[in-house]
Amino acid sequence: MSKHRFSGLLAPVITPFQNDLQPDAQRLLRHCQWLLSQNAGLAVFGTNSEANSLSVDEKIALLDALVAGGIPPQRLMPGTGSCALPDAIRLTRHAATLGCGGTLMLPPFYYKGVSDEGLFAFYSDVIEGVGDTDLQIYLYHIPPVSQVPLSITLIERLLSRYPATIAGIKDSSGDWNNTRALNSQGWEDFRVFCGSESFLLRNMQAGGAGCISATANVNPAPIHALYAHFQDADAGERQTALDQVRLIFQKYPMIAALKAATADCSGDVNWFRVRPPLVSLTPDQLAGLRADLKAAHFTMPGLESV
Amino acid sequence: MSKHRFSGLLAPVITPFQNDLQPDAQRLLRHCQWLLSQNAGLAVFGTNSEANSLSVDEKIALLDALVAGGIPPQRLMPGTGSCALPDAIRLTRHAATLGCGGTLMLPPFYYKGVSDEGLFAFYSDVIEGVGDTDLQIYLYHIPPVSQVPLSITLIERLLSRYPATIAGIKDSSGDWNNTRALNSQGWEDFRVFCGSESFLLRNMQAGGAGCISATANVNPAPIHALYAHFQDADAGERQTALDQVRLIFQKYPMIAALKAATADCSGDVNWFRVRPPLVSLTPDQLAGLRADLKAAHFTMPGLESV
Repeated sequence: MSKHRFSGLLAPVITPFQNDLQPDAQRLLRHCQWLLSQNAGLAVFGTNSEANSLSVDEKIALLDALVAGGIPPQRLMPGTGSCALPDAIRLTRHAATLGCGGTLMLPPFYYKGVSDEGLFAFYSDVIEGVGDTDLQIYLYHIPPVSQVPLSITLIERLLSRYPATIAGIKDSSGDWNNTRALNSQGWEDFRVFCGSESFLLRNMQAGGAGCISATANVNPAPIHALYAHFQDADAGERQTALDQVRLIFQKYPMIAALKAATADCSGDVNWFRVRPPLVSLTPDQLAGLRADLKAAHFTMPGLESV
Repeated sequence: MSKHRFSGLLAPVITPFQNDLQPDAQRLLRHCQWLLSQNAGLAVFGTNSEANSLSVDEKIALLDALVAGGIPPQRLMPGTGSCALPDAIRLTRHAATLGCGGTLMLPPFYYKGVSDEGLFAFYSDVIEGVGDTDLQIYLYHIPPVSQVPLSITLIERLLSRYPATIAGIKDSSGDWNNTRALNSQGWEDFRVFCGSESFLLRNMQAGGAGCISATANVNPAPIHALYAHFQDADAGERQTALDQVRLIFQKYPMIAALKAATADCSGDVNWFRVRPPLVSLTPDQLAGLRADLKAAHFTMPGLESV
């Protein structure tokens, strides 16, 4: 694992499934290649990747296939958190061994109301268990789903103990005040990514590092353009245009909608599949999404050719 | 897996860890033997077992060690739910192959607000994936922790499709109205277990099957006695006595308190260990628990000799 730190846009890459619901490594590889061509890094195994619906063995096999297929490991930030310490250690170690640029790490999320001390012990045990001085961990704060928040006090304690390892955070709280607070701590080279491009302009203006967003799967180039040009005069207009696309996807179950748009734009119906407990869009939802995207002149340029 | 259905008391067996936080199979075996001697069945890998802090490999190794150590598989109801379908299938199949009396199955608990349709698909895919006509599944409804409730509509749909497989439920909602509703559906031979002995007398009077409760780890014989004698004149007094013990443990973080009492009563300090994100009791908490248990003349008879 290199000591390079991430910035810019990353996609929590959607995971394609075969007819028997097994992960489809070759289709995932092609989607990752397309995302890289659109200036998006690869936060595989995120919430929108259905990562927690995959076994550790499946994630290791997919990661191996991506690297074997030519994806530069430095562009990969796989999600490696787990409820179970041995699972988190095993997957994180594997990512480190492959040379991934970092890992995005959920807290253990089964027990609720756990203490900062317990969460510190978990992250600490992962870091010590992996034992790689180049390991770069990005914390994953997503209380609406995990129900286990990461407090500023906890992050400070982790940074104090592991300053070379704790590289940043993805803040998917949906709470701008929290993202702003993270940016104002003055932590050296700590990379703050907002979990939605709705906050991208504000995050960049506050000193943030970029954005790791579901809709980066379908709208990567315009989101990256705002990241690259946030100081330009038209940044506000770019933000407004991004928000309009995001609002469409937010009207529907997000993961199923991302997959439906990808299926339609690539002409590849395999993308429609999700693993339980998620379900595909209903016919009415699919018709609504298609109408909304058509009205917005939405496209995924270059997708059909990969 | 036999078609016998469970009734009575089961303990979500606490899991002992070695100094390096690896699971301690021999110590678990001895605790299971003690629990059986106290008339408690073995719901290993429950919430109070720190099951989601264990990898699937660890759970399989522990289950193998218990059966190899002479635990009758029919007395085992291992928790086999998981966020990931392949993990749930693998562990459930293993339990079925060993001849376990049933499995207790959490819904996938990462995504929140999932549909009944998605949960039905998950359970259905597990049942079809295991492919054992003798499989006996007890659903695990624990919304305060999982945040993913199992609705009566969902259970009805599962029963309608898999009447020979869906054997019952553990209701850890803490909501007596829900337990009562489950008992009043008239579902044939559907076993309703309350998730706390606080509801045991009411559950038995309503036609329930018994209780699967954290404190069965430390107070099994008196809880079983109420189950066996719920129609006797002194049942109310028995319930009151059980409630008093439970209230002590509820004052503290439950799992750490169960382990502390077990450590103290067995003279085996190894029981104090928990895996992150849980933490052991603080010195103040431990002193408080000890004082409370002493005042209540609490004992775990026979534990020191196992």
